[in-house]
Amino acid sequence: MSTRVEIWTDINCPFCYLGKARFEQALAEFDHRDDVEVVHRSFELDPSLPADETGPVIPRIAAKYGISVAEAAANERAIGAQAAQLGLPYQSTGRDYGNSFDMHRLLHYALEHGAQDALLDALYAGNFADTEPVFGDTERLVALAVRAGLDETAVRAVLADQHAYADAVRADEREAAQLGATGVPFFVFDNKYAVSGAQPAEVFTQALTTAWNDRPTPLVALDADGETCGPDGCTS
Amino acid sequence: MSTRVEIWTDINCPFCYLGKARFEQALAEFDHRDDVEVVHRSFELDPSLPADETGPVIPRIAAKYGISVAEAAANERAIGAQAAQLGLPYQSTGRDYGNSFDMHRLLHYALEHGAQDALLDALYAGNFADTEPVFGDTERLVALAVRAGLDETAVRAVLADQHAYADAVRADEREAAQLGATGVPFFVFDNKYAVSGAQPAEVFTQALTTAWNDRPTPLVALDADGETCGPDGCTS
Repeated sequence: MSTRVEIWTDINCPFCYLGKARFEQALAEFDHRDDVEVVHRSFELDPSLPADETGPVIPRIAAKYGISVAEAAANERAIGAQAAQLGLPYQSTGRDYGNSFDMHRLLHYALEHGAQDALLDALYAGNFADTEPVFGDTERLVALAVRAGLDETAVRAVLADQHAYADAVRADEREAAQLGATGVPFFVFDNKYAVSGAQPAEVFTQALTTAWNDRPTPLVALDADGETCGPDGCTS
Repeated sequence: MSTRVEIWTDINCPFCYLGKARFEQALAEFDHRDDVEVVHRSFELDPSLPADETGPVIPRIAAKYGISVAEAAANERAIGAQAAQLGLPYQSTGRDYGNSFDMHRLLHYALEHGAQDALLDALYAGNFADTEPVFGDTERLVALAVRAGLDETAVRAVLADQHAYADAVRADEREAAQLGATGVPFFVFDNKYAVSGAQPAEVFTQALTTAWNDRPTPLVALDADGETCGPDGCTS
Protein backbone atom coordinates (compact mmCIF):
# COMPACT_ATOMS: atom_id res chain seq x y z
CA MET A 1 0.00 0.00 0.00
CA SER A 2 1.18 3.50 -0.77
CA THR A 3 0.81 6.64 1.29
CA ARG A 4 -1.52 9.38 0.05
CA VAL A 5 -0.94 13.03 0.84
CA GLU A 6 -3.69 15.56 0.19
CA ILE A 7 -2.70 19.22 0.26
CA TRP A 8 -5.33 21.94 0.49
CA THR A 9 -4.01 25.08 -1.10
CA ASP A 10 -4.89 28.39 -2.71
CA ILE A 11 -3.03 30.21 -5.46
CA ASN A 12 -3.41 33.40 -3.40
CA CYS A 13 -1.53 31.85 -0.49
CA PRO A 14 2.22 32.52 -0.34
CA PHE A 15 2.69 30.02 2.50
CA CYS A 16 1.17 27.38 0.22
CA TYR A 17 3.89 28.17 -2.30
CA LEU A 18 6.59 27.91 0.38
CA GLY A 19 4.96 24.88 2.01
CA LYS A 20 4.86 22.98 -1.26
CA ALA A 21 8.61 23.51 -1.72
CA ARG A 22 9.38 22.40 1.82
CA PHE A 23 7.16 19.35 1.53
CA GLU A 24 8.89 18.47 -1.74
CA GLN A 25 12.30 18.79 -0.08
CA ALA A 26 11.17 16.22 2.47
CA LEU A 27 9.59 14.00 -0.17
CA ALA A 28 12.70 14.02 -2.38
CA GLU A 29 14.74 12.61 0.52
CA PHE A 30 12.07 10.12 1.63
CA ASP A 31 13.06 6.49 1.07
CA HIS A 32 9.57 5.47 -0.07
CA ARG A 33 8.95 8.55 -2.22
CA ASP A 34 7.90 6.43 -5.21
CA ASP A 35 5.04 5.06 -3.14
CA VAL A 36 3.74 8.45 -2.07
CA GLU A 37 0.78 9.84 -4.01
CA VAL A 38 0.20 13.61 -3.78
CA VAL A 39 -3.13 15.25 -4.60
CA HIS A 40 -3.81 18.98 -4.44
CA ARG A 41 -7.20 20.00 -3.06
CA SER A 42 -9.04 23.30 -3.39
CA PHE A 43 -9.34 26.03 -0.78
CA GLU A 44 -10.23 29.62 -1.68
CA LEU A 45 -8.98 32.23 0.78
CA ASP A 46 -11.76 34.56 -0.34
CA PRO A 47 -14.55 32.71 -2.16
CA SER A 48 -16.77 35.80 -1.99
CA LEU A 49 -14.47 37.84 -4.23
CA PRO A 50 -16.13 38.81 -7.54
CA ALA A 51 -14.74 36.76 -10.42
CA ASP A 52 -13.29 39.80 -12.19
CA GLU A 53 -11.91 41.67 -9.17
CA THR A 54 -8.14 41.83 -9.01
CA GLY A 55 -5.48 44.32 -8.01
CA PRO A 56 -2.17 44.73 -6.19
CA VAL A 57 -2.12 42.70 -3.01
CA ILE A 58 -0.26 45.07 -0.68
CA PRO A 59 -2.86 47.89 -0.50
CA ARG A 60 -5.58 45.22 -0.44
CA ILE A 61 -4.05 43.50 2.60
CA ALA A 62 -3.51 46.83 4.32
CA ALA A 63 -7.13 47.88 3.80
CA LYS A 64 -8.66 44.50 4.57
CA TYR A 65 -6.80 43.76 7.78
CA GLY A 66 -6.38 47.30 9.08
CA ILE A 67 -2.60 47.50 8.89
CA SER A 68 -0.50 50.16 7.21
CA VAL A 69 0.71 49.77 3.66
CA ALA A 70 4.24 49.81 5.08
CA GLU A 71 3.42 46.88 7.36
CA ALA A 72 1.79 44.95 4.54
CA ALA A 73 4.82 45.59 2.34
CA ALA A 74 7.14 44.46 5.15
CA ASN A 75 5.15 41.23 5.51
CA GLU A 76 5.58 40.57 1.80
CA ARG A 77 9.32 41.22 2.05
CA ALA A 78 9.54 38.80 5.00
CA ILE A 79 7.83 36.12 2.93
CA GLY A 80 10.20 36.94 0.06
CA ALA A 81 13.15 36.40 2.38
CA GLN A 82 11.78 32.97 3.37
CA ALA A 83 11.28 32.15 -0.31
CA ALA A 84 14.87 33.17 -1.07
CA GLN A 85 16.12 30.71 1.55
CA LEU A 86 14.33 27.97 -0.38
CA GLY A 87 15.72 29.19 -3.70
CA LEU A 88 12.23 30.22 -4.80
CA PRO A 89 11.78 33.40 -6.85
CA TYR A 90 9.33 35.81 -5.20
CA GLN A 91 8.16 39.26 -6.34
CA SER A 92 7.81 40.90 -2.95
CA THR A 93 6.30 44.07 -4.39
CA GLY A 94 4.40 42.93 -7.38
CA ARG A 95 1.85 40.18 -6.87
CA ASP A 96 -1.89 40.60 -7.30
CA TYR A 97 -4.85 39.10 -5.51
CA GLY A 98 -7.90 37.73 -7.28
CA ASN A 99 -10.60 35.11 -7.50
CA SER A 100 -9.00 31.68 -7.87
CA PHE A 101 -12.13 29.61 -8.56
CA ASP A 102 -11.35 29.05 -12.25
CA MET A 103 -7.80 28.03 -11.36
CA HIS A 104 -9.12 25.45 -8.90
CA ARG A 105 -11.54 24.12 -11.53
CA LEU A 106 -8.62 23.78 -13.90
CA LEU A 107 -6.53 22.00 -11.26
CA HIS A 108 -9.26 19.35 -11.02
CA TYR A 109 -9.26 18.96 -14.79
CA ALA A 110 -5.46 18.71 -14.69
CA LEU A 111 -5.65 15.98 -12.03
CA GLU A 112 -7.53 13.79 -14.50
CA HIS A 113 -4.83 14.39 -17.08
CA GLY A 114 -1.79 13.77 -14.90
CA ALA A 115 -0.75 17.43 -14.91
CA GLN A 116 -2.10 18.77 -11.63
CA ASP A 117 1.25 19.22 -9.94
CA ALA A 118 2.74 20.87 -13.02
CA LEU A 119 -0.23 23.22 -13.31
CA LEU A 120 -0.02 24.23 -9.66
CA ASP A 121 3.68 24.96 -10.06
CA ALA A 122 2.90 27.06 -13.13
CA LEU A 123 0.17 28.99 -11.29
CA TYR A 124 2.40 29.62 -8.29
CA ALA A 125 5.22 30.74 -10.55
CA GLY A 126 2.79 32.96 -12.43
CA ASN A 127 1.51 34.60 -9.27
CA PHE A 128 4.57 34.77 -7.06
CA ALA A 129 7.60 34.73 -9.35
CA ASP A 130 6.49 36.55 -12.50
CA THR A 131 5.49 40.16 -12.79
CA GLU A 132 2.56 39.71 -15.18
CA PRO A 133 -0.85 39.35 -13.50
CA VAL A 134 -2.46 35.92 -13.39
CA PHE A 135 -5.91 36.90 -12.16
CA GLY A 136 -8.62 38.14 -14.48
CA ASP A 137 -6.63 37.25 -17.58
CA THR A 138 -7.91 34.14 -19.34
CA GLU A 139 -5.20 34.23 -21.99
CA ARG A 140 -2.48 34.19 -19.36
CA LEU A 141 -4.19 31.34 -17.54
CA VAL A 142 -4.43 29.35 -20.77
CA ALA A 143 -0.74 30.00 -21.43
CA LEU A 144 0.20 28.75 -17.96
CA ALA A 145 -1.94 25.63 -18.41
CA VAL A 146 -0.35 24.90 -21.78
CA ARG A 147 3.07 25.41 -20.16
CA ALA A 148 2.00 22.69 -17.69
CA GLY A 149 1.38 20.31 -20.58
CA LEU A 150 -2.40 20.60 -20.96
CA ASP A 151 -4.28 20.77 -24.23
CA GLU A 152 -5.19 24.36 -25.14
CA THR A 153 -8.60 23.60 -26.66
CA ALA A 154 -9.66 21.47 -23.71
CA VAL A 155 -8.44 24.10 -21.24
CA ARG A 156 -10.48 26.79 -22.99
CA ALA A 157 -13.54 24.54 -22.87
CA VAL A 158 -13.15 24.00 -19.11
CA LEU A 159 -12.67 27.72 -18.50
CA ALA A 160 -15.68 28.62 -20.67
CA ASP A 161 -18.02 26.24 -18.82
CA GLN A 162 -18.49 27.65 -15.33
CA HIS A 163 -20.05 24.36 -14.21
CA ALA A 164 -17.04 22.24 -15.17
CA TYR A 165 -15.41 20.90 -12.00
CA ALA A 166 -17.25 23.51 -9.92
CA ASP A 167 -18.78 20.80 -7.72
CA ALA A 168 -15.37 19.21 -7.27
CA VAL A 169 -13.93 22.50 -5.99
CA ARG A 170 -16.83 22.99 -3.58
CA ALA A 171 -16.61 19.39 -2.37
CA ASP A 172 -12.93 19.96 -1.52
CA GLU A 173 -13.84 23.08 0.40
CA ARG A 174 -16.61 21.32 2.32
CA GLU A 175 -14.20 18.54 3.22
CA ALA A 176 -11.61 21.04 4.44
CA ALA A 177 -14.25 22.56 6.71
CA GLN A 178 -15.24 19.10 7.98
CA LEU A 179 -11.61 18.36 8.74
CA GLY A 180 -11.31 21.57 10.71
CA ALA A 181 -8.92 23.32 8.33
CA THR A 182 -9.33 27.07 8.68
CA GLY A 183 -6.18 28.04 6.81
CA VAL A 184 -3.82 26.69 4.19
CA PRO A 185 -1.60 24.95 3.33
CA PHE A 186 -3.22 22.00 5.08
CA PHE A 187 -1.67 18.56 4.61
CA VAL A 188 -3.48 15.30 5.32
CA PHE A 189 -1.61 11.99 5.29
CA ASP A 190 -3.62 8.82 4.62
CA ASN A 191 -6.79 10.47 5.85
CA LYS A 192 -5.34 10.22 9.34
CA TYR A 193 -2.57 12.68 10.15
CA ALA A 194 -2.69 16.42 9.63
CA VAL A 195 0.03 19.04 9.28
CA SER A 196 -1.07 22.66 9.15
CA GLY A 197 1.05 25.37 7.59
CA ALA A 198 4.32 25.86 5.76
CA GLN A 199 6.32 23.84 8.28
CA PRO A 200 10.05 23.14 8.04
CA ALA A 201 10.95 20.17 5.83
CA GLU A 202 11.81 18.13 8.96
CA VAL A 203 8.17 18.24 10.06
CA PHE A 204 7.10 16.81 6.70
CA THR A 205 9.78 14.14 6.91
CA GLN A 206 8.42 13.16 10.29
CA ALA A 207 4.84 13.17 9.01
CA LEU A 208 5.75 11.03 5.98
CA THR A 209 7.55 8.57 8.26
CA THR A 210 4.68 8.40 10.72
CA ALA A 211 2.10 7.89 7.98
CA TRP A 212 4.27 5.33 6.19
CA ASN A 213 4.80 3.26 9.33
CA ASP A 214 1.09 3.38 10.07
CA ARG A 215 -0.17 3.07 6.50
CA PRO A 216 -3.42 1.23 5.90
CA THR A 217 -3.25 -2.51 6.11
CA PRO A 218 -4.68 -4.65 3.31
CA LEU A 219 -8.44 -4.98 3.25
CA VAL A 220 -10.14 -7.27 5.71
CA ALA A 221 -12.51 -9.65 3.89
CA LEU A 222 -15.69 -9.75 5.92
CA ASP A 223 -17.20 -12.90 4.46
CA ALA A 224 -16.58 -15.69 2.00
CA ASP A 225 -17.00 -14.48 -1.57
CA GLY A 226 -20.53 -14.22 -2.88
CA GLU A 227 -21.63 -14.45 -6.47
CA THR A 228 -19.53 -12.34 -8.80
CA CYS A 229 -18.77 -11.79 -12.45
CA GLY A 230 -15.18 -11.61 -13.62
CA PRO A 231 -13.16 -11.85 -16.80
CA ASP A 232 -13.83 -15.60 -16.83
CA GLY A 233 -17.60 -15.36 -16.45
CA CYS A 234 -20.11 -15.23 -13.64
CA THR A 235 -20.39 -17.68 -10.79
CA SER A 236 -23.90 -18.94 -10.29
CA MET B 1 -17.17 11.09 10.57
CA SER B 2 -19.29 9.28 8.02
CA THR B 3 -18.71 5.86 6.52
CA ARG B 4 -17.74 5.62 2.85
CA VAL B 5 -18.68 2.64 0.71
CA GLU B 6 -17.04 2.17 -2.67
CA ILE B 7 -18.64 -0.35 -5.02
CA TRP B 8 -16.77 -1.62 -8.06
CA THR B 9 -19.26 -2.64 -10.71
CA ASP B 10 -19.84 -3.26 -14.40
CA ILE B 11 -23.02 -2.71 -16.40
CA ASN B 12 -22.45 -6.14 -17.96
CA CYS B 13 -22.57 -7.81 -14.54
CA PRO B 14 -25.96 -9.16 -13.43
CA PHE B 15 -24.69 -9.88 -9.92
CA CYS B 16 -23.74 -6.20 -9.67
CA TYR B 17 -27.38 -5.35 -10.40
CA LEU B 18 -28.58 -7.82 -7.75
CA GLY B 19 -25.84 -6.85 -5.30
CA LYS B 20 -26.74 -3.17 -5.52
CA ALA B 21 -30.35 -3.97 -4.61
CA ARG B 22 -29.32 -6.14 -1.67
CA PHE B 23 -26.84 -3.55 -0.42
CA GLU B 24 -29.57 -0.91 -0.66
CA GLN B 25 -31.96 -3.10 1.34
CA ALA B 26 -29.36 -3.21 4.09
CA LEU B 27 -28.63 0.51 3.83
CA ALA B 28 -32.31 1.47 4.00
CA GLU B 29 -32.56 -0.29 7.37
CA PHE B 30 -29.25 0.98 8.71
CA ASP B 31 -29.60 3.44 11.59
CA HIS B 32 -26.79 5.69 10.34
CA ARG B 33 -27.80 5.56 6.67
CA ASP B 34 -27.69 9.38 6.36
CA ASP B 35 -24.00 9.27 7.26
CA VAL B 36 -23.10 6.65 4.67
CA GLU B 37 -21.57 7.89 1.42
CA VAL B 38 -21.75 5.54 -1.57
CA VAL B 39 -19.49 5.87 -4.60
CA HIS B 40 -19.58 3.62 -7.65
CA ARG B 41 -16.24 2.67 -9.15
CA SER B 42 -15.42 1.31 -12.58
CA PHE B 43 -14.60 -2.29 -13.48
CA GLU B 44 -14.93 -3.63 -17.03
CA LEU B 45 -15.52 -7.37 -17.27
CA ASP B 46 -14.04 -7.34 -20.75
CA PRO B 47 -11.96 -4.22 -21.41
CA SER B 48 -10.54 -5.75 -24.60
CA LEU B 49 -13.94 -5.81 -26.31
CA PRO B 50 -14.06 -3.54 -29.39
CA ALA B 51 -16.09 -0.40 -28.69
CA ASP B 52 -18.72 -1.26 -31.30
CA GLU B 53 -19.04 -4.98 -30.65
CA THR B 54 -22.34 -6.05 -29.13
CA GLY B 55 -24.79 -8.91 -29.43
CA PRO B 56 -27.03 -11.28 -27.46
CA VAL B 57 -25.32 -12.43 -24.30
CA ILE B 58 -26.45 -16.07 -24.17
CA PRO B 59 -24.64 -17.37 -27.30
CA ARG B 60 -21.69 -15.18 -26.37
CA ILE B 61 -21.40 -16.75 -22.91
CA ALA B 62 -21.81 -20.22 -24.37
CA ALA B 63 -19.06 -19.69 -26.92
CA LYS B 64 -16.69 -17.84 -24.61
CA TYR B 65 -16.84 -20.24 -21.66
CA GLY B 66 -17.37 -23.49 -23.55
CA ILE B 67 -20.82 -24.31 -22.23
CA SER B 68 -23.94 -25.14 -24.23
CA VAL B 69 -26.44 -22.48 -25.19
CA ALA B 70 -28.97 -24.32 -23.06
CA GLU B 71 -26.68 -24.08 -20.03
CA ALA B 72 -26.03 -20.39 -20.64
CA ALA B 73 -29.77 -19.80 -20.97
CA ALA B 74 -30.41 -21.72 -17.76
CA ASN B 75 -27.84 -19.58 -15.95
CA GLU B 76 -29.65 -16.46 -17.11
CA ARG B 77 -32.98 -17.87 -15.93
CA ALA B 78 -31.44 -18.66 -12.54
CA ILE B 79 -30.26 -15.08 -12.24
CA GLY B 80 -33.73 -13.93 -13.30
CA ALA B 81 -35.25 -16.01 -10.51
CA GLN B 82 -32.93 -14.35 -7.98
CA ALA B 83 -33.87 -10.95 -9.38
CA ALA B 84 -37.57 -11.78 -9.05
CA GLN B 85 -37.06 -12.54 -5.35
CA LEU B 86 -35.74 -9.01 -4.98
CA GLY B 87 -38.62 -7.54 -6.99
CA LEU B 88 -36.20 -6.56 -9.75
CA PRO B 89 -37.33 -6.86 -13.37
CA TYR B 90 -34.96 -9.05 -15.42
CA GLN B 91 -35.14 -10.05 -19.08
CA SER B 92 -33.69 -13.55 -18.80
CA THR B 93 -33.62 -14.09 -22.55
CA GLY B 94 -32.97 -10.68 -23.98
CA ARG B 95 -29.93 -8.83 -22.68
CA ASP B 96 -26.90 -7.94 -24.75
CA TYR B 97 -23.23 -7.74 -23.95
CA GLY B 98 -21.01 -4.88 -25.03
CA ASN B 99 -18.17 -2.53 -24.26
CA SER B 100 -19.04 -0.46 -21.18
CA PHE B 101 -16.15 2.01 -21.23
CA ASP B 102 -18.28 4.98 -22.34
CA MET B 103 -20.83 4.16 -19.64
CA HIS B 104 -18.11 4.16 -17.01
CA ARG B 105 -16.80 7.50 -18.30
CA LEU B 106 -20.30 8.88 -18.01
CA LEU B 107 -20.67 7.51 -14.47
CA HIS B 108 -17.63 9.55 -13.48
CA TYR B 109 -19.12 12.64 -15.05
CA ALA B 110 -22.40 11.91 -13.23
CA LEU B 111 -20.54 11.61 -9.91
CA GLU B 112 -19.47 15.23 -10.27
CA HIS B 113 -23.08 16.23 -10.89
CA GLY B 114 -24.71 14.29 -8.05
CA ALA B 115 -26.39 11.83 -10.42
CA GLN B 116 -24.09 8.82 -10.37
CA ASP B 117 -26.42 6.51 -8.49
CA ALA B 118 -29.39 7.51 -10.66
CA LEU B 119 -27.36 6.93 -13.82
CA LEU B 120 -26.19 3.51 -12.69
CA ASP B 121 -29.80 2.55 -11.90
CA ALA B 122 -30.84 3.75 -15.36
CA LEU B 123 -28.04 1.77 -17.04
CA TYR B 124 -28.87 -1.38 -15.10
CA ALA B 125 -32.56 -0.99 -15.91
CA GLY B 126 -31.66 -0.38 -19.55
CA ASN B 127 -29.53 -3.51 -19.75
CA PHE B 128 -31.33 -5.95 -17.50
CA ALA B 129 -34.97 -4.87 -17.38
CA ASP B 130 -35.67 -3.34 -20.79
CA THR B 131 -35.67 -5.15 -24.09
CA GLU B 132 -33.99 -2.41 -26.14
CA PRO B 133 -30.21 -2.71 -26.45
CA VAL B 134 -28.01 -0.31 -24.46
CA PHE B 135 -24.64 -1.09 -26.02
CA GLY B 136 -23.47 0.47 -29.25
CA ASP B 137 -26.35 2.96 -29.29
CA THR B 138 -25.34 6.47 -28.34
CA GLU B 139 -28.86 7.86 -28.60
CA ARG B 140 -30.16 5.28 -26.14
CA LEU B 141 -27.29 6.02 -23.77
CA VAL B 142 -28.04 9.74 -23.96
CA ALA B 143 -31.71 9.05 -23.24
CA LEU B 144 -30.81 6.97 -20.17
CA ALA B 145 -28.47 9.70 -18.92
CA VAL B 146 -31.16 12.35 -19.38
CA ARG B 147 -33.60 10.09 -17.52
CA ALA B 148 -31.06 10.10 -14.67
CA GLY B 149 -31.22 13.89 -14.58
CA LEU B 150 -28.12 14.81 -16.54
CA ASP B 151 -27.86 17.61 -19.09
CA GLU B 152 -28.16 16.30 -22.64
CA THR B 153 -25.63 18.65 -24.23
CA ALA B 154 -23.03 17.96 -21.57
CA VAL B 155 -23.60 14.20 -21.84
CA ARG B 156 -23.09 14.33 -25.60
CA ALA B 157 -19.88 16.28 -25.09
CA VAL B 158 -18.54 13.69 -22.65
CA LEU B 159 -19.44 10.83 -24.99
CA ALA B 160 -17.89 12.59 -27.98
CA ASP B 161 -14.58 13.15 -26.22
CA GLN B 162 -12.98 9.73 -25.75
CA HIS B 163 -10.45 11.24 -23.34
CA ALA B 164 -13.08 12.62 -20.95
CA TYR B 165 -12.92 10.68 -17.68
CA ALA B 166 -10.96 7.89 -19.38
CA ASP B 167 -8.13 8.23 -16.87
CA ALA B 168 -10.62 8.12 -14.01
CA VAL B 169 -12.02 4.82 -15.29
CA ARG B 170 -8.57 3.32 -15.66
CA ALA B 171 -7.50 4.58 -12.24
CA ASP B 172 -10.51 2.78 -10.71
CA GLU B 173 -9.53 -0.40 -12.51
CA ARG B 174 -5.93 -0.16 -11.35
CA GLU B 175 -7.11 0.34 -7.79
CA ALA B 176 -9.39 -2.70 -8.01
CA ALA B 177 -6.41 -4.77 -9.12
CA GLN B 178 -4.29 -3.39 -6.28
CA LEU B 179 -7.04 -4.32 -3.82
CA GLY B 180 -7.12 -7.84 -5.17
CA ALA B 181 -10.60 -7.63 -6.70
CA THR B 182 -10.84 -10.12 -9.56
CA GLY B 183 -14.63 -9.98 -9.91
CA VAL B 184 -17.53 -7.67 -9.22
CA PRO B 185 -19.50 -6.45 -7.41
CA PHE B 186 -16.73 -5.60 -4.95
CA PHE B 187 -17.59 -3.47 -1.94
CA VAL B 188 -15.02 -1.60 0.16
CA PHE B 189 -16.00 0.04 3.43
CA ASP B 190 -13.86 2.94 4.67
CA ASN B 191 -10.88 1.68 2.70
CA LYS B 192 -10.64 -1.12 5.24
CA TYR B 193 -13.25 -3.85 4.94
CA ALA B 194 -14.15 -5.74 1.77
CA VAL B 195 -17.22 -7.68 0.74
CA SER B 196 -17.05 -9.57 -2.55
CA GLY B 197 -20.12 -10.53 -4.49
CA ALA B 198 -23.88 -10.14 -4.43
CA GLN B 199 -24.18 -11.23 -0.81
CA PRO B 200 -27.43 -11.43 1.14
CA ALA B 201 -28.54 -8.13 2.68
CA GLU B 202 -27.56 -9.43 6.15
CA VAL B 203 -23.90 -9.54 5.11
CA PHE B 204 -24.08 -5.88 4.07
CA THR B 205 -25.83 -4.99 7.33
CA GLN B 206 -22.98 -6.64 9.20
CA ALA B 207 -20.38 -4.88 7.05
CA LEU B 208 -22.02 -1.49 7.56
CA THR B 209 -22.14 -2.09 11.31
CA THR B 210 -18.53 -3.22 11.46
CA ALA B 211 -17.32 -0.26 9.42
CA TRP B 212 -19.45 2.19 11.39
CA ASN B 213 -18.17 0.96 14.73
CA ASP B 214 -14.61 1.16 13.46
CA ARG B 215 -14.93 4.33 11.39
CA PRO B 216 -11.93 6.62 11.09
CA THR B 217 -11.15 8.80 14.03
CA PRO B 218 -10.65 12.55 13.59
CA LEU B 219 -7.31 13.63 12.19
CA VAL B 220 -4.27 13.55 14.43
CA ALA B 221 -2.43 16.88 14.33
CA LEU B 222 1.26 16.05 14.06
CA ASP B 223 2.65 19.41 15.08
CA ALA B 224 1.71 22.86 16.23
CA ASP B 225 0.36 24.92 13.36
CA GLY B 226 2.88 26.49 11.03
CA GLU B 227 2.43 29.61 8.95
CA THR B 228 -0.86 29.65 7.08
CA CYS B 229 -3.16 31.95 5.16
CA GLY B 230 -6.86 31.99 5.94
CA PRO B 231 -9.91 34.16 5.39
CA ASP B 232 -8.50 36.61 7.94
CA GLY B 233 -5.08 36.94 6.36
CA CYS B 234 -1.71 35.25 6.60
CA THR B 235 0.24 34.65 9.77
CA SER B 236 3.84 35.76 9.51
